[in-house]
Amino acid sequence: MIINNGIELGNEKLDFATKVITELQNELPKYIDDGHGPFLAAIYRDKILIAKTANSVVIDNCSNNYAEVNVIKTAQDILDSYDLSPFDLDLYVTAEPCMMCLGAIMWSGVRSVFYGVPSDTVEKITGFDEGFKPNWFDEFNKRGIAVYGNIEPDLGEKVLKEYAKNGKIYKPQR
Amino acid sequence: MIINNGIELGNEKLDFATKVITELQNELPKYIDDGHGPFLAAIYRDKILIAKTANSVVIDNCSNNYAEVNVIKTAQDILDSYDLSPFDLDLYVTAEPCMMCLGAIMWSGVRSVFYGVPSDTVEKITGFDEGFKPNWFDEFNKRGIAVYGNIEPDLGEKVLKEYAKNGKIYKPQR
Repeated sequence: MIINNGIELGNEKLDFATKVITELQNELPKYIDDGHGPFLAAIYRDKILIAKTANSVVIDNCSNNYAEVNVIKTAQDILDSYDLSPFDLDLYVTAEPCMMCLGAIMWSGVRSVFYGVPSDTVEKITGFDEGFKPNWFDEFNKRGIAVYGNIEPDLGEKVLKEYAKNGKIYKPQR
Repeated sequence: MIINNGIELGNEKLDFATKVITELQNELPKYIDDGHGPFLAAIYRDKILIAKTANSVVIDNCSNNYAEVNVIKTAQDILDSYDLSPFDLDLYVTAEPCMMCLGAIMWSGVRSVFYGVPSDTVEKITGFDEGFKPNWFDEFNKRGIAVYGNIEPDLGEKVLKEYAKNGKIYKPQR
């Protein structure tokens, strides 16, 4: 069941989000085959695609380059602004953002976040550490950012399970 | 008084950290004059400087480009590895990392974090939003990352107060 942080966006937006998340999950295996990590994000202005990028940690050799960080950078390049808030943008991503990406999203000025697979499922399937982010739904609500989660999670879980069989699970050694 | 997260590093390391943070605070105004945001970070291997970068959000037009994010990227470029953990590196930064940067630090593989001005003081002086990160000292301890904070905070506060008089306080409009 789809969950949200109390900022209502209406059925039309939610139907569109389901369509976008489904598309992203279906496209993700192609990105994985090309060496990307198993996460794909997109930024839209209403129904117009502005930017779409996957996790590129391994191929770019940079641990910052998560899908959401990449898509924010790309959108800001395209729109020539470090503050996306005047453009009224929505961010879609195949899994719940980690702690770093939540921060990146907050500072970027996007207005809403839609995600597929929740973090506890991502951690269980892949072994990735998603960080600590208690009450982030409320914290985003306080800042006026709408959050909708658990959109078509079964589809996303399938992609992650396939990735986990062979893919690289990067974790700093400690 | 300097605080830490329970991972003891010894006096020699702490003396060196005080020296580095003092240098960073003293150099920061020059970076601000060149258009950078008021935060400067460095990564060292023992006492060898690997990378030093300031916040470049405004000059790079990208809200991701905080000092810590930049310095991690630069160190990973130089060392040709997205996982810095084999290199046993320390990160120094003029102010307590925000939520995004805490995530970036955790995924980078640096072994310890030393910072100057605490976030509540940064928020009070500048108006920046530093995010939500309850118990991050403990969370870093769990992951084996040492944290030392409030190193020469008066020096850092002075730089931030000077910045706040004229500098750009970027915040997404909501």
